[in-house]
Amino acid sequence: MPTALLVHAHSESDSFVTAMRDRIAQTLAGQGYAITHSDLYAMNFNPVLSPADFGQRSTPDHLVYALEQRHNFESGTLAADIVTEIEKIRAADLIVLTFPLFWFSVPAILKGWFDRVFISGTFYGGKTIYGRGGMAGKKACAAFSLGGREDMFGERGIHGPLVHGMMRHLFQGTLGYIGADVIEPFVAHNVPYQPLEVRSRCLDELAEYFSDLDNHPRIPIPDLDKFGPRFEPL
Amino acid sequence: MPTALLVHAHSESDSFVTAMRDRIAQTLAGQGYAITHSDLYAMNFNPVLSPADFGQRSTPDHLVYALEQRHNFESGTLAADIVTEIEKIRAADLIVLTFPLFWFSVPAILKGWFDRVFISGTFYGGKTIYGRGGMAGKKACAAFSLGGREDMFGERGIHGPLVHGMMRHLFQGTLGYIGADVIEPFVAHNVPYQPLEVRSRCLDELAEYFSDLDNHPRIPIPDLDKFGPRFEPL
Repeated sequence: MPTALLVHAHSESDSFVTAMRDRIAQTLAGQGYAITHSDLYAMNFNPVLSPADFGQRSTPDHLVYALEQRHNFESGTLAADIVTEIEKIRAADLIVLTFPLFWFSVPAILKGWFDRVFISGTFYGGKTIYGRGGMAGKKACAAFSLGGREDMFGERGIHGPLVHGMMRHLFQGTLGYIGADVIEPFVAHNVPYQPLEVRSRCLDELAEYFSDLDNHPRIPIPDLDKFGPRFEPL
Repeated sequence: MPTALLVHAHSESDSFVTAMRDRIAQTLAGQGYAITHSDLYAMNFNPVLSPADFGQRSTPDHLVYALEQRHNFESGTLAADIVTEIEKIRAADLIVLTFPLFWFSVPAILKGWFDRVFISGTFYGGKTIYGRGGMAGKKACAAFSLGGREDMFGERGIHGPLVHGMMRHLFQGTLGYIGADVIEPFVAHNVPYQPLEVRSRCLDELAEYFSDLDNHPRIPIPDLDKFGPRFEPL
């Protein structure tokens, strides 16, 4: 039975984004997925990476975050809340992020989940990035809401392309970087200005999208075979 | 006397990023700037936007973050730590961000500073974005460190363009969006792998960069005069 980890970043149980998360859970369960959750607001997840995450220090005099992530995970001294999240990811075949778009990115509570949980060594390293990252073999997808209309994006839109432009940092630079097979996200535009029936139709489209996940396009990720040992273009 | 607000996101007082912040402060003070600080780790800044930020609710039954930001700022019931930061920005002519690059973005503690402090109404609104945003007339710049080498970026680099690609969300989508005149950032590549003398030279280059800030290129921001009242291209 495949497992889907739903990582959710909204404080309100009656929000549209939470309704999206619930509909995704229902849809994936209907597809035979076991569902696990990281509901970051409900967990009161701490998003601030700090020395407090490390029970031991390999270099006590000078902190290097990435070095201590590797060292503390290996020695079993990494903060327990981080280890729990790492284990959830390891047990999942699919990770789904649900969030409202803040500043063309994820809310801080989810950004800090990346900062603290996607640790060096386990998820990425010098040459183990993109197709060779720690999430290789797993899928990732996102569903998010925003205020802007669809016509504000794209090559002629005022903001330029959204998923492949403004949000490249997330889809290529984060989920793709750690090796996931990144499925194009489901984008709910203009949500705050829509009446209930439009929102309801949007949730139906979401359910349809997640019932057919494998058939959607993928985010293009750099092909490591086209780069040399120092990532020089071949 | 112009004022520069230095917004800093590193936990360690002996880090390279903190040395960058200190050198920028020294350099700008030498240029006649009064310096103010938001040292986010030292302040134990809360980066998580939540209903607790709002002392009053214009819609008690259903939370809309942006609506409550406007309402609570106007009614004097917005969380005090947010108001303090807004006042610091209002008093500043230049804002400088210093941070280590995490996931082609800022650390969560700084992302949450954007989420909570750049409030709707004061910094942006439906049509008051980009050149008409709340920071119009103020300058913004950033200095950040990363592990990657410079040759990993650009059109032929494995990751693609950095400042104008992966980080468009920050420079155009956040600082530019709220109206700042955004100066090209100072980028310190490959920092964890450099010996002290190289880091020291990098700090000298940083000082030179910040001693001549007005003469550096700007981040291109969409020109609102080229779009109609619904942001349709003219």
